[in-house]
Amino acid sequence: MKESTSVIKKLEQAKQWVQEAGQFLRENLAEPLEITEKTRYDDLVTNYDKAVQKRIISKILQAYPKDFILAEEDEKKVEFSEQISQLWVLDPIDGTTNFIVQKDDFAIMLAYFENGVGKFGIILDVMNEKLYWSNDHAAFCNEKQLHENVAPLHQSLLAVNAYMYRTNTGGLLDLSHHTLGVRSCGSAGISYTKLLDGKIIGYFSHLQVWDYAAGMIISEKLGFVTKALDGENPHFNGREMVYTVPKRLLGLIQEKMQGSEN
Amino acid sequence: MKESTSVIKKLEQAKQWVQEAGQFLRENLAEPLEITEKTRYDDLVTNYDKAVQKRIISKILQAYPKDFILAEEDEKKVEFSEQISQLWVLDPIDGTTNFIVQKDDFAIMLAYFENGVGKFGIILDVMNEKLYWSNDHAAFCNEKQLHENVAPLHQSLLAVNAYMYRTNTGGLLDLSHHTLGVRSCGSAGISYTKLLDGKIIGYFSHLQVWDYAAGMIISEKLGFVTKALDGENPHFNGREMVYTVPKRLLGLIQEKMQGSEN
Repeated sequence: MKESTSVIKKLEQAKQWVQEAGQFLRENLAEPLEITEKTRYDDLVTNYDKAVQKRIISKILQAYPKDFILAEEDEKKVEFSEQISQLWVLDPIDGTTNFIVQKDDFAIMLAYFENGVGKFGIILDVMNEKLYWSNDHAAFCNEKQLHENVAPLHQSLLAVNAYMYRTNTGGLLDLSHHTLGVRSCGSAGISYTKLLDGKIIGYFSHLQVWDYAAGMIISEKLGFVTKALDGENPHFNGREMVYTVPKRLLGLIQEKMQGSEN
Repeated sequence: MKESTSVIKKLEQAKQWVQEAGQFLRENLAEPLEITEKTRYDDLVTNYDKAVQKRIISKILQAYPKDFILAEEDEKKVEFSEQISQLWVLDPIDGTTNFIVQKDDFAIMLAYFENGVGKFGIILDVMNEKLYWSNDHAAFCNEKQLHENVAPLHQSLLAVNAYMYRTNTGGLLDLSHHTLGVRSCGSAGISYTKLLDGKIIGYFSHLQVWDYAAGMIISEKLGFVTKALDGENPHFNGREMVYTVPKRLLGLIQEKMQGSEN
């Protein structure tokens, strides 16, 4: 299947917009933050989440005024739909708590869909200046093509949402006993970069579509699949427990999540 | 208190030995590993743990043939003791699983004690080429002096051992509810570097003396204190649950670990 010229052009533009936004964040990291609580004391947004969102949205709409945008910090969000012929999904700062507290381990994520089909994803590990992205046929980190690199489950690590892990939601704790252990870094975007780098074999968390859209699209190029906890495809609306694992280990992983013994 | 010339000289030599060992690991990262299970399937050692240990021990003994060395991969270990006037404590690769699986997030750690008193600590974040170390009066990352940087508990993150967290050992889960959350990276050394950078406010894990000796000594220079789970000083012998937190928050943290309500 050949990628259309217009999608290739969008991808190149989108990579540049994300890179520029990352540079803006790195240059302003020493400035004081305005921090606002959203739903609860540990659900935070800063003036920089909003500034990055504004910058990227304005670039998209300037170039493609008819496209739709689903962005984390929008008060009124469009709903993800297969009816929308051109839809951008944006997380301006993924891992906002890390951004505030650690000044590290946060990402900018942008994904692009046509009629519900993911065309490309972009994840920028801002502090390490690593841009992960996919086109129609492959995944890349900066200009280097990434390749499938799947170790056996028992020689691998998982990235997990701490709550799901400790409460064994979906059998995640059971599954973890069949691996070398779990890691938790507080950012979906950074977790997906570790998956793409082959550092972890699976990522399990409680996510909104802007948290997993880019990671899902890019990781598909390396043989990963993203599922909701019930084994179905994610529904892309509202917060949902999802996981991304190698397609060829999906059966084994689902078996271990059902608590079958060693 | 003035540092003796001999300790200053040892520190400078030790920094160089650790840096050289780090370079050796980075240069050989693409080579195949020989992996051996120690106590169980997820307690691993590689030929590189052994090679780094051998390199550093031979440097120490060449320069200081009468000094004692307590090293992780020694079959027969000396016991930590205040009776030993010159004792080096070495972890050749801390985060061996990360070293094997991720090729990232592992550290070389070296600490030096005189009659039970920590004189200096060294932690090398190998892949990021960041050397954390302390002398008699201050802590450094490479050549930059580090400074105390303690946020309020409820605006901070913890690094935790996943098992202790999920089982609420020592009230760690209770404590975590008074913070912005937990992170888990699979290496004591890397966790200590995050503590020294101000990215986390406390580190809780189940450790051997070579896992926390260097971190304890360096972090003291930034106002941190290292305690066993019972609130006493660690006993430096055998695996022990320990935590390192800011001294001026110790009372508050111990209170929250006892499960007092919000």
